[in-house]
Amino acid sequence: MATVTLIEYEDASPEVKAVYDDIRAVRNTDYINNFWKALAHHPDTLKRIWASLKEVMGPGEIDSLTKEMIYIAVSIANNCDYCIHSHTASAFAKGMTPGQYQELMAVIGMAHQTNGIATGLKVPVDE
Amino acid sequence: MATVTLIEYEDASPEVKAVYDDIRAVRNTDYINNFWKALAHHPDTLKRIWASLKEVMGPGEIDSLTKEMIYIAVSIANNCDYCIHSHTASAFAKGMTPGQYQELMAVIGMAHQTNGIATGLKVPVDE
Amino acid sequence: MATVTLIEYEDASPEVKAVYDDIRAVRNTDYINNFWKALAHHPDTLKRIWASLKEVMGPGEIDSLTKEMIYIAVSIANNCDYCIHSHTASAFAKGMTPGQYQELMAVIGMAHQTNGIATGLKVPVDE
Amino acid sequence: MATVTLIEYEDASPEVKAVYDDIRAVRNTDYINNFWKALAHHPDTLKRIWASLKEVMGPGEIDSLTKEMIYIAVSIANNCDYCIHSHTASAFAKGMTPGQYQELMAVIGMAHQTNGIATGLKVPVDE
Amino acid sequence: MATVTLIEYEDASPEVKAVYDDIRAVRNTDYINNFWKALAHHPDTLKRIWASLKEVMGPGEIDSLTKEMIYIAVSIANNCDYCIHSHTASAFAKGMTPGQYQELMAVIGMAHQTNGIATGLKVPVDE
Amino acid sequence: MATVTLIEYEDASPEVKAVYDDIRAVRNTDYINNFWKALAHHPDTLKRIWASLKEVMGPGEIDSLTKEMIYIAVSIANNCDYCIHSHTASAFAKGMTPGQYQELMAVIGMAHQTNGIATGLKVPVDE
Repeated sequence: MATVTLIEYEDASPEVKAVYDDIRAVRNTDYINNFWKALAHHPDTLKRIWASLKEVMGPGEIDSLTKEMIYIAVSIANNCDYCIHSHTASAFAKGMTPGQYQELMAVIGMAHQTNGIATGLKVPVDE
Repeated sequence: MATVTLIEYEDASPEVKAVYDDIRAVRNTDYINNFWKALAHHPDTLKRIWASLKEVMGPGEIDSLTKEMIYIAVSIANNCDYCIHSHTASAFAKGMTPGQYQELMAVIGMAHQTNGIATGLKVPVDE
Repeated sequence: MATVTLIEYEDASPEVKAVYDDIRAVRNTDYINNFWKALAHHPDTLKRIWASLKEVMGPGEIDSLTKEMIYIAVSIANNCDYCIHSHTASAFAKGMTPGQYQELMAVIGMAHQTNGIATGLKVPVDE
Repeated sequence: MATVTLIEYEDASPEVKAVYDDIRAVRNTDYINNFWKALAHHPDTLKRIWASLKEVMGPGEIDSLTKEMIYIAVSIANNCDYCIHSHTASAFAKGMTPGQYQELMAVIGMAHQTNGIATGLKVPVDE
Repeated sequence: MATVTLIEYEDASPEVKAVYDDIRAVRNTDYINNFWKALAHHPDTLKRIWASLKEVMGPGEIDSLTKEMIYIAVSIANNCDYCIHSHTASAFAKGMTPGQYQELMAVIGMAHQTNGIATGLKVPVDE
Repeated sequence: MATVTLIEYEDASPEVKAVYDDIRAVRNTDYINNFWKALAHHPDTLKRIWASLKEVMGPGEIDSLTKEMIYIAVSIANNCDYCIHSHTASAFAKGMTPGQYQELMAVIGMAHQTNGIATGLKVPVDE
């Protein structure tokens, strides 16, 4: 079975093009990630997910780079190849240093380890 | 089957007490989390995990609160009840605001959603 | 390390051939999926898993296409590449429309999102 | 650490009350699930998640009960206690029979089994 | 929503009683685990799962205690509370020493750690 | 985004070379797995993880092959492609027979199945 097809800008409906345009404007780049091109088969989903992501990953009380590192942590735990790649690229684009990247991996690995042991031992929650 | 028993300070061997003392010194509190009391049945593991955690979660290029938020993200993805509770408490103790906590949950939820969809659609990694 | 080898029909033992024949008869196709060819190294496992799958995925109170969509949902959550591909193909073969496929992905994504948040917040179960 | 607090209708801000009112109207019941009461600390998240859920779980090409069964499948794979309980209740409310429930569990169990084996054996995807 | 009800021996149909009798005979104990009592609502599933478990966990090339430790490892990774408890009890009943139990937890924790890091770094498979 | 780069022995710092030398000595082979070459960008992590792995996987109360099989079980549940490959290779190198490998897969599959069902049914833990 083939992988999902991707809908390029020039082949997109006006509804989809409007989302692509907003992605380009918000991200200040012409590049549109494959994820959006894959969602474009279902414009309602494309619009909903993009609107949600824009809101959640936009300015707030947690800085933008930290949000990307959290996103990477979840994506690794869920083993989403695509998401690990794209959010690692985003984090580097937002200024993550090689040292921070190495530390991020170390924290993620450590968390997995103690998660496994605490779950296995059924450690009672601290009061 | 009973949950793992916890070894209290006063019942601990000198080897275990030494680790407990270090935990108290590094964390600047008398409180010792149940996780360590559960590991104390196997002093080699206790020493190894504590030494690793102290190194990984100690000062580095990622600030301490961010590390806790990453730890929470992994613990939620792995559904480790104990770890979610203890690292959420740590994050609040290190200054996480209620607004940051809400945003953290929103980012984690969003990541899970796009992880599921990108995996399901088998979106090819961007070049 | 090489991937598991696959045992083709013509190289199979009579015991394995009997299972392959049943798969072909039940599915009304000559095609035998790689999964079965990989299991054929252990005929007891091949027989047991095939007999179980035939029973579970056979006629019952849930229609056949719905069962495939449920199977896809689990396979995505477990990130089983092989299973996502094969059950997505089966679902399309059983009449899943492109619109249903898109909705399936949307429901799966949504479930992952609220799973993450409900687990993170430790929302108490409703009475 | 305490579990998240829940915001009851009478204590909610007008912004939150508006969402609660919509939940009640759409679901045709006065009951508001704890999940929404937990999200109400962050009205933007409450509004976004509710709007998304209403859209995704609303009328479409997959019938409503099937969507609930898919939601259950994901929630079990992610081990979200709250979500398993609430969506199982919803599925029964939407007409799931005891026989369908049993079959749902059987399909989910079967999928987990073959997911594990296919991942372990690294079975190559069928052409 | 209530937890699944359990069907006790005295309330079971002859079909279910026959499975319960076999469980008792194979395990050489009168005790029947709640898992089987929960499955008894669907006798076909009860029979199928019990027959599979008996075959898989029965005598073979891997000794019985090792099989239980593998079962625990999977159950922890999947975070199945019930399964962790019951298979840990079984492993102790089959002679697992406290030292082996501690080592089992250490290996499981270590595996989780390197799984997380290898997945995060996308380390290419060794030739 | 490119995969992580690997640091070969001849390009490594003296600090990293010392770890590589120890890996070669302990494992009695010149081959160094890609995992270590990927970690070598962060010598502290390389040293910590290697020291931990050497301790955990070294001689103890659980024999070496059993530890590898447990490692495989966790790696499959976490779907770590790299880890499945490398620990399966290690297990075979330590004497795992084809029959044991097949049984290992059967036990892992069975555990996933009952994990899913016990979690779905919320079976209460046996007293």
